[in-house]
Amino acid sequence: MSRCLISQVEVQDFIERCMISVGTKPHHAHSLAEVLVEGDHRGHYSHGLNRMDMYVKDIQTGICEKYGEPLVEKESAATALVDGKNLLGPVVGNFCMTLAIKKAKEVGIGWVVAHGSNHYGIAGYYAMQALKENMIGMTFTNTSPLVVPTRGKECTLGTNPLSVAAPAMNGDSFVLDMATSAVAIGKVELYDRRGDPIPEGWGCDAKGQLTTDPSRVLNGGGLVPVGGSEATGGYKGYGLGMMVEVLCGILAGAQYSKHIRTWKETGRVANLGQCFVAINPENFAPGFSDRMSDLLSIQRGVHSANPDIPVLVAGDPERMHMKKCEEMGGIPYHMNVVNYMNQCAQKIGVSPLLPCDKLISN
Amino acid sequence: MSRCLISQVEVQDFIERCMISVGTKPHHAHSLAEVLVEGDHRGHYSHGLNRMDMYVKDIQTGICEKYGEPLVEKESAATALVDGKNLLGPVVGNFCMTLAIKKAKEVGIGWVVAHGSNHYGIAGYYAMQALKENMIGMTFTNTSPLVVPTRGKECTLGTNPLSVAAPAMNGDSFVLDMATSAVAIGKVELYDRRGDPIPEGWGCDAKGQLTTDPSRVLNGGGLVPVGGSEATGGYKGYGLGMMVEVLCGILAGAQYSKHIRTWKETGRVANLGQCFVAINPENFAPGFSDRMSDLLSIQRGVHSANPDIPVLVAGDPERMHMKKCEEMGGIPYHMNVVNYMNQCAQKIGVSPLLPCDKLISN
Repeated sequence: MSRCLISQVEVQDFIERCMISVGTKPHHAHSLAEVLVEGDHRGHYSHGLNRMDMYVKDIQTGICEKYGEPLVEKESAATALVDGKNLLGPVVGNFCMTLAIKKAKEVGIGWVVAHGSNHYGIAGYYAMQALKENMIGMTFTNTSPLVVPTRGKECTLGTNPLSVAAPAMNGDSFVLDMATSAVAIGKVELYDRRGDPIPEGWGCDAKGQLTTDPSRVLNGGGLVPVGGSEATGGYKGYGLGMMVEVLCGILAGAQYSKHIRTWKETGRVANLGQCFVAINPENFAPGFSDRMSDLLSIQRGVHSANPDIPVLVAGDPERMHMKKCEEMGGIPYHMNVVNYMNQCAQKIGVSPLLPCDKLISN
Repeated sequence: MSRCLISQVEVQDFIERCMISVGTKPHHAHSLAEVLVEGDHRGHYSHGLNRMDMYVKDIQTGICEKYGEPLVEKESAATALVDGKNLLGPVVGNFCMTLAIKKAKEVGIGWVVAHGSNHYGIAGYYAMQALKENMIGMTFTNTSPLVVPTRGKECTLGTNPLSVAAPAMNGDSFVLDMATSAVAIGKVELYDRRGDPIPEGWGCDAKGQLTTDPSRVLNGGGLVPVGGSEATGGYKGYGLGMMVEVLCGILAGAQYSKHIRTWKETGRVANLGQCFVAINPENFAPGFSDRMSDLLSIQRGVHSANPDIPVLVAGDPERMHMKKCEEMGGIPYHMNVVNYMNQCAQKIGVSPLLPCDKLISN
């Protein structure tokens, strides 16, 4: 399938054009575009341009608010509860993460939770904001129910991702950004479209039995928590999904668990709960970044089972994708994504993504 | 195999007798005994009386300190760095968790990390201390390297457990207490002794290949992170193990990763890093415990794949074990554990565990 390269600047501008055309405030559109471009740049295409139409629709239908700013409802030196005012997720996320970092500069930690939020794109984007301040960043969000708890046969938890970023020396870092399900739903959809079986341990059927048939997962079944079956530790992934829910929906007083609207349901406000944390290593033992670099070196230096496939640390696959983009001079997109987005743009009277510099083959 | 019942009070007293006889300060012995009894009471026998001889030896050889108390080295309203002074893990753990709770009462969160610590028993014991104050408790600890990172073939991470406890109404709670490896090493040892194969996804051989042969895991291989193979999400468990290391050894300036002494090596000080967190829901949205109870009800009410095996929440298996102990009137122990501990006691001139009330069959 043919792909084309588009510069980050052009994708950023395109998303802003689209969002502003439906009434989004320019700085809100800017925030959203940045997260989506960063998703694509890091290789997480499921959380990038590919999802723009969803955000456009959220603003068009009024399911997300166009006006206003997030509001601090309750605050201490180290904590805050924020009302996201049903604004776009990245607007809420940036507000909360900035606040968490400010608090961490003052008292070593900032722990900020928000209700009234929406999809915020890749979690890593927020955690990584702490890296610029030489801090550890963390974030958690609840999501629509797609995961079946261990032993069960209904979806009562979201893929509830978490992200943790920690700075090492010379711009190096550890960036964990993961769903607490074994995989994302998009990955199962991809296998289904291809007609390929999925590995055992990704999802279950409507009876709660693990299956390798992606269509059974998508039709009445669900994703399973990381760890897979009970015997291989799936109850741990289930527990981690619950942990994220406790720190998000429950702590923030947002929707939670099966009370959250279903995936792709757009007729109801999401009211997601999210949690943002910054930790200042200066409040702890000196030499944090040096130890981080040593830790990363140790892992990357581990003898690998297959010498052609090196041991990585979290954040390395994304680093490799970004390097590839730098070398090619843009982000590679599948033409069908570009064409689809240009059709969306046309409907709202927005000029299309700039003609690609070059076509590249897969 | 025959088992016997022993009252919690008697086990507590026995461990204190043993520890004091080798020179442990009485209140330190009390702290240790409490964590070990709680481990057994919750059904985690691998972290209870069964490990007492290790602690006795640590004090006898001077590898753990008998004298002194933990020291706060650096502090803010919300954070603290503690020097555990190489005291017994539970002494350090109680000190840090008490401090974290105190800070959470004042500013909504307390984030305390310690270096110079030792094995602290079940992680859940510390997280659960926050429940008494209607707070969320969390703890993390690094441990000796036993886990092979995804794609690798050497152990460079510990089983690095984490625990999160959150209070619901009427004494109910969520208590996640899990290693970030698929299973604990003790479980593999158990299968090995029985001659049974282990499920795929627990461990790998010396070449880094997943194996169902427990002896290969124990001889040159290692445990694998929760999630198993790379295809089923093992890199997530690996990332979680790294997260725990970042928040423990790296943040605290303790030993970390493969610098930590190997499992069962006792000739070198452990200098473990540990992290203790308390979060006060009163600083966030009102009604936390009500929402927690609803969340737990939702999960426990999920239709199960097998009606005989209900869906549980983290903490329920332990709750069931404690209920069984209450009904029986004591904690059931295998006779060989009791006999072995009594032999240990005899060597240090300590009176044995009180004759069991009754023998029970398995």
